[in-house]
Amino acid sequence: MLRTGFQVAVILGHHGALPGLTHLLPRFNPASAFGSSTETLVSRFCREMTESKNYALPNASWGPDMLSLYHEFLEKTKTEGWVRLPSFGSNRDHIQGFKLPLESSANSDKSDWRLFTRCIEREGQGYEYVIFFQPSEKKSICLFQPGPYLEGVPGFAHGGSLAALIDETFSKTAYLSGEGLLTVNFNIRFKNLIPLGSLAVLNVSVEKIEDQKVYLSCVTQSRDQQTVYAKASGTFLQMQLEEDSSQH
Amino acid sequence: MLRTGFQVAVILGHHGALPGLTHLLPRFNPASAFGSSTETLVSRFCREMTESKNYALPNASWGPDMLSLYHEFLEKTKTEGWVRLPSFGSNRDHIQGFKLPLESSANSDKSDWRLFTRCIEREGQGYEYVIFFQPSEKKSICLFQPGPYLEGVPGFAHGGSLAALIDETFSKTAYLSGEGLLTVNFNIRFKNLIPLGSLAVLNVSVEKIEDQKVYLSCVTQSRDQQTVYAKASGTFLQMQLEEDSSQH
Repeated sequence: MLRTGFQVAVILGHHGALPGLTHLLPRFNPASAFGSSTETLVSRFCREMTESKNYALPNASWGPDMLSLYHEFLEKTKTEGWVRLPSFGSNRDHIQGFKLPLESSANSDKSDWRLFTRCIEREGQGYEYVIFFQPSEKKSICLFQPGPYLEGVPGFAHGGSLAALIDETFSKTAYLSGEGLLTVNFNIRFKNLIPLGSLAVLNVSVEKIEDQKVYLSCVTQSRDQQTVYAKASGTFLQMQLEEDSSQH
Repeated sequence: MLRTGFQVAVILGHHGALPGLTHLLPRFNPASAFGSSTETLVSRFCREMTESKNYALPNASWGPDMLSLYHEFLEKTKTEGWVRLPSFGSNRDHIQGFKLPLESSANSDKSDWRLFTRCIEREGQGYEYVIFFQPSEKKSICLFQPGPYLEGVPGFAHGGSLAALIDETFSKTAYLSGEGLLTVNFNIRFKNLIPLGSLAVLNVSVEKIEDQKVYLSCVTQSRDQQTVYAKASGTFLQMQLEEDSSQH
């Protein structure tokens, strides 16, 4: 029933051997330069989108820890060059005016797609998070308050919910730092469980950019840094977004 | 507002040094035997729960690929010893009558907790999946049809949504194969993007059980096995569930 509307063509072809993602993206030219400056990428990413809801703003479900750290970083956007990243319901909003260098028949008129980490609409029930990015140091902080729909072990956030949010924070940081777009690999070691409703702080850094790949690391911990929840690393493939001439 | 109801105590203490999860779970005895047979674990896991919805049953959103492979494996439950695992809205239902060897103040009377991979109620919009387990070979198959709320790159499943479902399939397989309960680490390499609405098949195997840990691997591919979407591995810590005497 529902499926009809969003069935899309398999776009990456059928490959017996798997030499890696770069070989599977016919319109990606690995020799191309990645010339957009972080400044350009950030200003394009953060432009006003009055018609799309920005989920990275406080709501009534945010606890005191989340709120006070949010305001602390908001202060740093004025004095220390940090940028609060907007967070829309779909990556389609984030890349408006551009298209991916991937063939896809997914751009139908159906509009009810959601970015996975914004899939639960009700405030406080699922993902509550906001990402702050520091362009000159190529690092990010993500404030994360998991709601009761993210449960794994009773009372605690599912390991997969944290993994997905780290991947998402990596992807935005990799894109803004060097046009890293697709996850190539991702590793995570869990140290402690995150109690639902509490605050976890993701500290993400770009370690290096090399061979068309952006390498990132993340330490997730409590606000007081006394409890480490997880350590993770990931690699993203660089790809340039193309201007979407069909929209003009 | 919402937060008040499900705020839980930080239960694993504050540890400056992090010697690993086993040290952080005071009621876990690493010397204890893991004596429950797979047969016992499976029969306990699959008992009738008429009051809880089982999400691992076909619904109108399932496409022809998902449905036909589901029926193929259902046939194997009659002839080849495969078991279709029930899938409830919360792990609290799965472990009813038992409690975790973790201190937690999370067992409040609030009932609206959800297993992360069952967080989206509307059929076809989020996770559609069913896990079949083969006890004698300690392996599982998970049929996965991602809906439009699991989006990452426009038109495709978010890498984090696949990672979370592999982690979830690992956890059920690790538990039934050898009482593996908590994810220690998880690695994933992405090869191709999964188009939303299509079928991906997760092939999970227990590689070994050693030093109170269960080691697993997963290959995720298209039904015809011509496209590999991702390869993953994970390690789970063994812990025995205790009978919950408070319920008697």
